[in-house]
Amino acid sequence: MTSGSQQGIDSGARIFLDPGDVVLVENPTYLAALQAFAAYQVRLVAVPSDDEGMQVDRVAALIAAHRPKLIYLVPSFQNPKGTTLPPARRTALVEIAAAHRVAILEDDPYGELSFAGPPPRPIAADSHGNVLYLSTFSKTLAPGLRLGWLWGDAAIVRKATIAKQAIDLHTATLAQRATTALLARFDYAGHVARIREVYRERCATMLGALAEYLPADCRWVAPTGGMFVWLQLPAGLDADALLPAAIARKVAFVPGSAFFVEEIRRDFVRLNFSNQPPASIVEGMRRFGQVIDAAQARPRSPRNR
Amino acid sequence: MTSGSQQGIDSGARIFLDPGDVVLVENPTYLAALQAFAAYQVRLVAVPSDDEGMQVDRVAALIAAHRPKLIYLVPSFQNPKGTTLPPARRTALVEIAAAHRVAILEDDPYGELSFAGPPPRPIAADSHGNVLYLSTFSKTLAPGLRLGWLWGDAAIVRKATIAKQAIDLHTATLAQRATTALLARFDYAGHVARIREVYRERCATMLGALAEYLPADCRWVAPTGGMFVWLQLPAGLDADALLPAAIARKVAFVPGSAFFVEEIRRDFVRLNFSNQPPASIVEGMRRFGQVIDAAQARPRSPRNR
Repeated sequence: MTSGSQQGIDSGARIFLDPGDVVLVENPTYLAALQAFAAYQVRLVAVPSDDEGMQVDRVAALIAAHRPKLIYLVPSFQNPKGTTLPPARRTALVEIAAAHRVAILEDDPYGELSFAGPPPRPIAADSHGNVLYLSTFSKTLAPGLRLGWLWGDAAIVRKATIAKQAIDLHTATLAQRATTALLARFDYAGHVARIREVYRERCATMLGALAEYLPADCRWVAPTGGMFVWLQLPAGLDADALLPAAIARKVAFVPGSAFFVEEIRRDFVRLNFSNQPPASIVEGMRRFGQVIDAAQARPRSPRNR
Repeated sequence: MTSGSQQGIDSGARIFLDPGDVVLVENPTYLAALQAFAAYQVRLVAVPSDDEGMQVDRVAALIAAHRPKLIYLVPSFQNPKGTTLPPARRTALVEIAAAHRVAILEDDPYGELSFAGPPPRPIAADSHGNVLYLSTFSKTLAPGLRLGWLWGDAAIVRKATIAKQAIDLHTATLAQRATTALLARFDYAGHVARIREVYRERCATMLGALAEYLPADCRWVAPTGGMFVWLQLPAGLDADALLPAAIARKVAFVPGSAFFVEEIRRDFVRLNFSNQPPASIVEGMRRFGQVIDAAQARPRSPRNR
């Protein structure tokens, strides 16, 4: 048990990495993973991603060029892009990594939030002993519990257990016992099914509002689960520069620049649809459209998709 | 708020240290601090200690020789020795460290467990801005809460806060709110006064039993608080080698070797008096005396002190 899957990232970095080692990461990727790796003074090498997540066909060349110790990825409903790695890429990745003796840190906080069908099959389920899998109750029960877990080969878990003793000795037993008692009395599967449906509806609402209120030269891909839409702004706009005007209209987003390694791009925005009810999402996207229009200093150009 | 003071040690290491840096530590010192520092690939340099804790008059020469970034110590009712640094040494330490721009990590989980008089005044209370102070509810309410805290100059706390985001985002709000509610309804001061008295009595019981059942050539110093007695075995005995025989008689201790840096000594034992009622402590020390006698293969030689 870990203090959220965030501590699983920190633990994975600690047990697999020494200063100067190389980690392959999706680009863009989860920003607090970048912070966790930075503490271990490692070098991050970006693997490009497309609308289906990490471009696994680029990995072999990057392994040959950089000799990484670890590959970090969020394969399902990725943060920030919302992408999901297809089964064939998952199989290819675990085999390439095993062949080159590179470990994989599979961070899966969102897998249960699948809008249609069961959660994607974890990479770790077909591991060759080289995958450390992380998940959490943060996105299904409550982030404030700080209850995550890691799963992998016994030898890896033993290293993580010893590392945990130096990190914080153990995860709070009060939270563990409270959650154990909750799971015994509470329809967890029904609860997850309900939030999946709520998030699916909110996502559909956001996508509809984006089509209605944003200029036609914005680009996004509909996610099939999770919490995020990754939006590319019209050419020439800077997400960081837009943020103050958006916040002045009570619309918050995360500028995409924070998620990039190597080449930092400023024309992306991460939008979250899980937190607000549909009416607020529609109004928020309407105002966000106005912010973009004002920044472009041109009339609103509605988009149909 | 930290996940116990253990996470405060890990955080302090992370914000103050780079690989190859030097940390001055008491010798012996808290073993899980040694593990926490090891993860950051730093070099530990031992400061000798006596019956009053760290020999602060040795620190200036060690700073000159090794240029440490950090001094780590448990100044009150130390783990494992039970020693408490006198006020004059505290003042001298904080001034030497400030003069040489060395940070101090003051780990104080036991300070409230003072048998006579108020807790010792923390070093951080007279800080020149160079002390990060750690404490915890683990020894007064429950270790399973994993609720500790760190305190220091705003600039240091800000660095720790940013580091915390990468470590585990935040400390469990369930435990924080439960403890806040408890503190509002519960006589915490009365509770601490009661466990102080219980531990004082158990400590006195252990010291009496040691005098009665252990050979005269054992050595210990009476602690004035905390949870531990640090016992030196008769010449030629090895604490690690004694442990299996002791456990066979249902007596457990921590061999002292785990607490040393540089020269590892095997003739010390850390005894805990907080966990068992007086009658069990007496019986435990009686059996421990038998284990020592058997190892010495000579008749029991009672000791009067």
